[in-house]
Amino acid sequence: MADVLVLGAGLIGTSIALSLRGVADVLLHDLDPAVASEAVARGGGRLWDGRERANTVVIAVPPGATAGALCQAQRLRLGRTYTHVSSVQSQVQREIEMVSSALSEIVGGHPLAGREASGPGAATGDLFVGRPWAVCPSEDSSAESLADVRALAEGCGAVPVELDAEAHDSAVALLSHLPQVVASALAGQLVAGEGARRTPTVLSGPGLVDTTRLAASDPGLWTDILRLNAQHVAPVIRDLAAELTALAVALDSGRTDGVRAFLERGNQGRAVVPVKRGELSAAFGRVRVSVDDQPGVLAALLAAAGRAGVNVEDVHVEHIPGRPQGVIELLVDVAAVERLQHSLETSGWQVLGI
Amino acid sequence: MADVLVLGAGLIGTSIALSLRGVADVLLHDLDPAVASEAVARGGGRLWDGRERANTVVIAVPPGATAGALCQAQRLRLGRTYTHVSSVQSQVQREIEMVSSALSEIVGGHPLAGREASGPGAATGDLFVGRPWAVCPSEDSSAESLADVRALAEGCGAVPVELDAEAHDSAVALLSHLPQVVASALAGQLVAGEGARRTPTVLSGPGLVDTTRLAASDPGLWTDILRLNAQHVAPVIRDLAAELTALAVALDSGRTDGVRAFLERGNQGRAVVPVKRGELSAAFGRVRVSVDDQPGVLAALLAAAGRAGVNVEDVHVEHIPGRPQGVIELLVDVAAVERLQHSLETSGWQVLGI
Repeated sequence: MADVLVLGAGLIGTSIALSLRGVADVLLHDLDPAVASEAVARGGGRLWDGRERANTVVIAVPPGATAGALCQAQRLRLGRTYTHVSSVQSQVQREIEMVSSALSEIVGGHPLAGREASGPGAATGDLFVGRPWAVCPSEDSSAESLADVRALAEGCGAVPVELDAEAHDSAVALLSHLPQVVASALAGQLVAGEGARRTPTVLSGPGLVDTTRLAASDPGLWTDILRLNAQHVAPVIRDLAAELTALAVALDSGRTDGVRAFLERGNQGRAVVPVKRGELSAAFGRVRVSVDDQPGVLAALLAAAGRAGVNVEDVHVEHIPGRPQGVIELLVDVAAVERLQHSLETSGWQVLGI
Repeated sequence: MADVLVLGAGLIGTSIALSLRGVADVLLHDLDPAVASEAVARGGGRLWDGRERANTVVIAVPPGATAGALCQAQRLRLGRTYTHVSSVQSQVQREIEMVSSALSEIVGGHPLAGREASGPGAATGDLFVGRPWAVCPSEDSSAESLADVRALAEGCGAVPVELDAEAHDSAVALLSHLPQVVASALAGQLVAGEGARRTPTVLSGPGLVDTTRLAASDPGLWTDILRLNAQHVAPVIRDLAAELTALAVALDSGRTDGVRAFLERGNQGRAVVPVKRGELSAAFGRVRVSVDDQPGVLAALLAAAGRAGVNVEDVHVEHIPGRPQGVIELLVDVAAVERLQHSLETSGWQVLGI
């Protein structure tokens, strides 16, 4: 009997298998034999023979197919604990409860480590390292199965975050699904309606680029996610739409106090977004440097920061349209801002704003 | 008589003076003498004596104060051409038309080069290099004054983009003001209502960080901008709210074709966002590398890319919460993706997804 059987050798399933290398004996299966072979060839465990059992069975298929696959595996008695990796928990659990006769063996899971790529070729053994992995036991889940799923998450290097399915779904509705919806809606406005056709996008700036980044996501996967979490996503979409409508009314009637309160709530909300390791953006300062946009310039700048003993937490490159020039913004500890500015300027860099 | 008189020595006014160094004889003034002195000390032209005239007078004060300051300067006959730098054109022009008796001398302007910082200390001589500078003549503007304002923009290194005030305001409503509103609304949801109070933000990812970045903007300045452009912003906010409401209805009723069409429009919209120099995001590919999050690692990685002869267009650092580890994403020409992946892997980097 193996430790883990992963059913579905896509990005997540194969990454689980790669993550457990040296930690657990893993069997891997996919309905598409070519996909399964590719995953195993990358080092993702052993090819499942269709019979061998495992302690923990992981269903790693799209959210809409999860409940069916899990219950089928359970009927075949393939393991002692069953889990999955669905971005949506409640609806999947409801579907499971309509079919399964051994709910104690089942604990939902959701590693928060998405990528824009897919398939076993995109899988990596460190996809989950340090990332949260939601673990969602139901009232029927046994302590043994809960421990098995926590061990699976930890074996993959993730941090188990235990919460019930409803709390998970309402959290990701706000933190993950709503940002996707907002980015898609905003980008959609650029190609919808009459105004869009005559809008010179040459006048756009980096704000639009950041805010629409998620709009490039896969429509098939996200239709599935939004559909299954409709119960939690639709209300927060309506709240946001109501907030926007109220802002439009305030603008129409010239009530600037309402507009200002709206923008200040945005400031407050941004301040609770974890930028890095749970620290907040207030802990970081920005150093901006004007550079020629040539191979190696970013490297040279970061090398200079390294020589100054400053750790660069993030980098933002702002290109100047039509010119081989740009501005590089370095995010560093606020306490290091002045030291870095001084050090870079001394080395001949054109530091902005000092 | 000087070439240019800049009234208002904030970020934009002082940056104009610094940009024109060696190009034009610039006078600088601010209601706050300390601010004016700081700007001049940084090399931003000569301190205005309160009488000397100039060819072109630039009003560089907040949008709400622009029309008043411009008409006052005109009454004092300080120049032959008057322009401003307001983020909003139509409303300012209407205010000007109520007061000015020499509309031929006036041409609105708006350099698209904002920053989150403000004041003369944040000004730079290359803020406008290669950036679009909207030039908005009215029907009354003379050809001479239009030429003066185009020359001002070009003297600052910017690219003049001529369009009428209405077209400008409707473009920035969609490309700049709506992204600000959407980011603020989304961030605001994190601190509004009951759901927010029990949402574990530990479950958030990089998508939320990108999408809420603009929400940190200055509420005072943006209240002013949204108020003055209410006529163009309110309708696009309503369109977006209607789109979101329609999505919520589609989700409630299980109409997945509507959800998918919404997401696909987002894909199409994202494809027309200029990521760099008017090129579209499809021209770039991503190379992802797993790294230890230590001083110098970014520099070393970019140095390796430089040695491979690949120009890195942008960098995105994705931190792993709670761990000294992260993923660096390099945006490069699609044609260079495989070469860079191979080269980095050969040098011992942990390239993801190959």
